[in-house]
Amino acid sequence: MSKLEDIVSLCKRRGFIFPGSDVYGGMAGTWDFGPLGVMLKKNIMDTWWHYFVETRDDMYGIDAAIIMNPKTWVASGHAATFADPLVECKECKSRFRADKIADGITESVTTDEFLALHVKCPTCGKENWGPIRKFNMMFTTHVGAVLPEDTKDNPELAEKNIAYLRPETAQGIFTNYKNVVDTIYPNLPFGLAQQGKAFRNEISPRDFILRDRECSQMEIEYFVAPDTWEENFEKMRSLQHDFLENVIGLPAKNIHELDVPKEDRAHYSKRTIDFMFDYPNGEEELMGLAYRTDFDLSNIERESGKSMEYRDKTTKEAFIPHVIEPSIGVERLFLAVLSNAYTEDEIDGEKRVVLKLPKALAPYKFCVSPLLKNKPELVDKAKEVYDKLRQKYTFVTWDDSGNIGKRYRKQDEIGTPECVVIDFDTLEDGTVTVRDRDTTKQKRVKIEKL
Amino acid sequence: MSKLEDIVSLCKRRGFIFPGSDVYGGMAGTWDFGPLGVMLKKNIMDTWWHYFVETRDDMYGIDAAIIMNPKTWVASGHAATFADPLVECKECKSRFRADKIADGITESVTTDEFLALHVKCPTCGKENWGPIRKFNMMFTTHVGAVLPEDTKDNPELAEKNIAYLRPETAQGIFTNYKNVVDTIYPNLPFGLAQQGKAFRNEISPRDFILRDRECSQMEIEYFVAPDTWEENFEKMRSLQHDFLENVIGLPAKNIHELDVPKEDRAHYSKRTIDFMFDYPNGEEELMGLAYRTDFDLSNIERESGKSMEYRDKTTKEAFIPHVIEPSIGVERLFLAVLSNAYTEDEIDGEKRVVLKLPKALAPYKFCVSPLLKNKPELVDKAKEVYDKLRQKYTFVTWDDSGNIGKRYRKQDEIGTPECVVIDFDTLEDGTVTVRDRDTTKQKRVKIEKL
Repeated sequence: MSKLEDIVSLCKRRGFIFPGSDVYGGMAGTWDFGPLGVMLKKNIMDTWWHYFVETRDDMYGIDAAIIMNPKTWVASGHAATFADPLVECKECKSRFRADKIADGITESVTTDEFLALHVKCPTCGKENWGPIRKFNMMFTTHVGAVLPEDTKDNPELAEKNIAYLRPETAQGIFTNYKNVVDTIYPNLPFGLAQQGKAFRNEISPRDFILRDRECSQMEIEYFVAPDTWEENFEKMRSLQHDFLENVIGLPAKNIHELDVPKEDRAHYSKRTIDFMFDYPNGEEELMGLAYRTDFDLSNIERESGKSMEYRDKTTKEAFIPHVIEPSIGVERLFLAVLSNAYTEDEIDGEKRVVLKLPKALAPYKFCVSPLLKNKPELVDKAKEVYDKLRQKYTFVTWDDSGNIGKRYRKQDEIGTPECVVIDFDTLEDGTVTVRDRDTTKQKRVKIEKL
Repeated sequence: MSKLEDIVSLCKRRGFIFPGSDVYGGMAGTWDFGPLGVMLKKNIMDTWWHYFVETRDDMYGIDAAIIMNPKTWVASGHAATFADPLVECKECKSRFRADKIADGITESVTTDEFLALHVKCPTCGKENWGPIRKFNMMFTTHVGAVLPEDTKDNPELAEKNIAYLRPETAQGIFTNYKNVVDTIYPNLPFGLAQQGKAFRNEISPRDFILRDRECSQMEIEYFVAPDTWEENFEKMRSLQHDFLENVIGLPAKNIHELDVPKEDRAHYSKRTIDFMFDYPNGEEELMGLAYRTDFDLSNIERESGKSMEYRDKTTKEAFIPHVIEPSIGVERLFLAVLSNAYTEDEIDGEKRVVLKLPKALAPYKFCVSPLLKNKPELVDKAKEVYDKLRQKYTFVTWDDSGNIGKRYRKQDEIGTPECVVIDFDTLEDGTVTVRDRDTTKQKRVKIEKL
């Protein structure tokens, strides 16, 4: 098994992540977080929110609806350009994203360019392709009291009430910029941050949670005076490094900056740095930092007819702010954390799997167990210690299953930093064994000192 | 203005809640949370999660995808029965939910029953109705690489890749029950909890955030041995009261239990208590507590062909657990909290609006300001106090706009419990003025004692 397969297997085995709609044979491109996964995901999201929003004076939160007025996606350019090149094998009817089954082409490949490459169909091996068609990745839906039978002979009606699941959280921020300026009166530069779901109808979802159809994003739109964009870009850039390396604990050596060349940048960006991470299957984008100019606010101004100008409180000068956007996918960060933590080593000749998660991110901080589960005096004492720790740290788990060695293996796999074991000495001298996850070293500690 | 209108106005004015897609003239039935709203919403959701999940040994979290395998909604009954009675005025083409424009009828009203009531169209005043049609409230979408042009002459293809936005979070829990039992091995009774978005294509969204098309739910499915359902139902019932009254601070006198009669209960429930709350516009459902029997797990077993039995660890007896479900909408709780906190009173002959939020829920715990903003020595000292408090409590805001009276009014409106003011005495004796939101009383406190 590859390391990624090992991680997928651990995630399912220990209740971090299950395939979406597993019981019904799945739903391609969706994943469900189980009890342990919910805890880790919440720790990651809360840590980000605390670092970038709660502890800063220049950041505010937004939580916009997923279904937005369709004009949003006209203004943002998504209606016209958020599309992948779809190609169909005329022999076996399989459909693919053209730029994913051939080397050296991008999303803007034409039919002629693709045919010239003489690609064989990955499913049937033949070479008989239809034309490249643009497939818009936005999920559509319809809002309002219209029944399918109403639109059958009246497609304009269906068109009229069409809406989209947002393909990014960013536009939920931009469309609220004006409301925030008018109610909170923030000083420039200021940022609006949002955590929430985004949806992309990927042609071929793959790589576990890296390319899924439904993901959670954490985005900041940082509004700045136009002539200060470069200094603010640099400020954001070093903040991202500080967060990823010093707060989340990802090694600097596994994070690589990719200064995206003009031809590969999104249509709205004048500069983009992709933060690439060494995932088990190779380097992949972990997050992006983009200078979006005044692209979005100007488009909203044009589409809505409302001024997006910001008036400087001191100089009284009015202008449309420019924007620096750090954007990260929760699932991508989740997988980076797991990839970095996942370790196979050998303890006294025995192989083990251990998740070396930073303490702040680990689902449980302690596991408490009695050495033997059939000795009531040990169980009672252990329960007492458990209750005490639980009141202090909340995230404490109890384990009295199997033997002590099995329990350590299990706690290692879910990343619990310390196991506290109550044995007969505890009853004598009030000390417990504390076993360290990473070193597997044990030491005796007074209960009060825990 | 009615009290509800006052609250809507305050929400927009102070950045709690804006109409969704406001800048484009809105998107009916959606609402966006602004900076203050995000803070209050997060406090409410985290308080619920802490009370019902983190501090309990019998509860675990789930975070399932919003787009699920469509079999989910066949098994749950939503595909067949999650529908409202839609009626159209043949004169002006307006469409309504029949049971909302006539008294004394329910969702199961027939065309004949409706016509017999001689209802006038609320839009044009005429009486010329089409038949009652069942309108399914689930939003549909399509998953996979299929273009609109493909399905034009091939509706079966569109049908094949149809999917729904979940109309409730509950099914994301039920479909993961088996995975959790197989990985975490919980003892009965145990609960699985989820917070997340749910979507309902309401025919007429209304009453601010009470009946919106996109809402956040907090649901627990509590799995119990069949013969213990009544005691567990009672346990859950008193937990809900404890949470709403003692943790969230809603007055018991404004919460009314409604034991829902058989004919009004959802098809799956053998007993339901609706917790009604006195909202500004009258009594409305705040949350529901339902005994769902083994309805959902049995349906999943049938639809998936997989056993949903739980094997008791001691008796080795195998059975399908029964389920108690407490379910609450975040927006409904949010509005209950606001309705209860919103107060208009008079201070020294001057009218004011104040949000008497419980301290734990208030967005900011303190506001720090210098008495005069043009005295650098006061501003510097105030900054020092602000930094100190911010390190200790995080949720502290700074205000040096307008005069001190205006600042108090603003902090009252956003529910900040205490305003700390630095004046010339502070420079002399190290004391500050602390002004209480509810009583407006002021006292002098040593900085270290804050």
